[in-house]
Amino acid sequence: MRFPLETRYPDYDTKGHVNNATFLTFFEMARGRAWVDVMGQPVDPDFILAEANVRYVSEAMIGEQLDIEITTTEVRTKAWVWSYAVRSVSDGRLVAEGRTVQVMFDYADKRPIPISEEVRKGLALV
Amino acid sequence: MRFPLETRYPDYDTKGHVNNATFLTFFEMARGRAWVDVMGQPVDPDFILAEANVRYVSEAMIGEQLDIEITTTEVRTKAWVWSYAVRSVSDGRLVAEGRTVQVMFDYADKRPIPISEEVRKGLALV
Amino acid sequence: MRFPLETRYPDYDTKGHVNNATFLTFFEMARGRAWVDVMGQPVDPDFILAEANVRYVSEAMIGEQLDIEITTTEVRTKAWVWSYAVRSVSDGRLVAEGRTVQVMFDYADKRPIPISEEVRKGLALV
Amino acid sequence: MRFPLETRYPDYDTKGHVNNATFLTFFEMARGRAWVDVMGQPVDPDFILAEANVRYVSEAMIGEQLDIEITTTEVRTKAWVWSYAVRSVSDGRLVAEGRTVQVMFDYADKRPIPISEEVRKGLALV
Repeated sequence: MRFPLETRYPDYDTKGHVNNATFLTFFEMARGRAWVDVMGQPVDPDFILAEANVRYVSEAMIGEQLDIEITTTEVRTKAWVWSYAVRSVSDGRLVAEGRTVQVMFDYADKRPIPISEEVRKGLALV
Repeated sequence: MRFPLETRYPDYDTKGHVNNATFLTFFEMARGRAWVDVMGQPVDPDFILAEANVRYVSEAMIGEQLDIEITTTEVRTKAWVWSYAVRSVSDGRLVAEGRTVQVMFDYADKRPIPISEEVRKGLALV
Repeated sequence: MRFPLETRYPDYDTKGHVNNATFLTFFEMARGRAWVDVMGQPVDPDFILAEANVRYVSEAMIGEQLDIEITTTEVRTKAWVWSYAVRSVSDGRLVAEGRTVQVMFDYADKRPIPISEEVRKGLALV
Repeated sequence: MRFPLETRYPDYDTKGHVNNATFLTFFEMARGRAWVDVMGQPVDPDFILAEANVRYVSEAMIGEQLDIEITTTEVRTKAWVWSYAVRSVSDGRLVAEGRTVQVMFDYADKRPIPISEEVRKGLALV
């Protein structure tokens, strides 16, 4: 799935670029869209992040419209991988790409748990 | 080098954990300390980030004092790698670790440039 | 003008509320929409903020859709006032309201300057 | 009480100034210091914000060391006022000032409650 990113003025740094840490927030916004809108899951998610990677490819300057694509690229027993691509809308240029590893988590017991059938079906839609 | 992290209330998410994107900001704070305080370089740095990775190891809850260690782990012609470890001060537990790849950058010409001798010497101190 | 607010997970604090400082960012997003979309001005604005006030009226919880209304409520020679209302979309409940004072600013000369005719006409549309 | 502010790179906007919303975060940091360090209260506070005001006085540029002063300026039955001054350390110049109104809050009952004797004594120390 792919959707437009609404950036905010504080996303930009002193050089007019999107700040490096903000891309993890962009990834998080994409996860929210996937999790809630596509998968119909509750807004405060019961998974944790095990890993996050970003590769910065080109500069995204203030005023440039961006979009993000999120794809489920691997599903294991308790964890899955989402991959991301942030692009400039005007020329389709890749700005950044990355991946995050999510683990289903029981917050009461503080331990990883298997992915439910329902979540597994949802992940296939993303 | 290792130094204490002053966290802020907005660093914590709805579950009382440090938000995943905030770790890239912690890494950035460590870079600032290394670049300005240790290496004596100007506050608005002339390098760009090519890559960032975070591995989330344990939960850091609100109220927990954290510190961060930054180490130069690789120096190439135009780029270098910094590695990070965020730990809980009370028990020394690893909270997160990661690495970033920096590239010296000529903002006027918009291209990577070789690391100067001065920066190279500074990197050896971190 | 009134438009939907896309919130982000880090906007929420440990209690699941929108963090108090985030409302100034919401106001800034509304200003961006007014300045760029309605008034057709450049994305990196040449005014400064002289004052900001927020009154927190009710709790906005995670998952609640919000919108924001921005209105020009006063125009002076070099400054103007924008007023804001953030509401819950589901029940129209007022969440927060506030105002900011903007001053046209010459960044080269570091001094306030009169509002141009073009900006003045634009302000009447907001 | 007065203490140094550790700024972060994302605090600065495209013009190299501290972003306007960040001052509410600076005020929040001062409240945290007052509440936890001076008053010995728990880290996740049981008061809510009713109002916040900021007056932007001079530009704080990247690299400039700032400090903040927080003072209890009014104590009512259920609410109190904290006032703030952010200054540049090098020349003592006032950068911004403001005030916030806090209300003691019972999160279970969702209603304001009177300030306890213990909190009242603590407020007198700030």
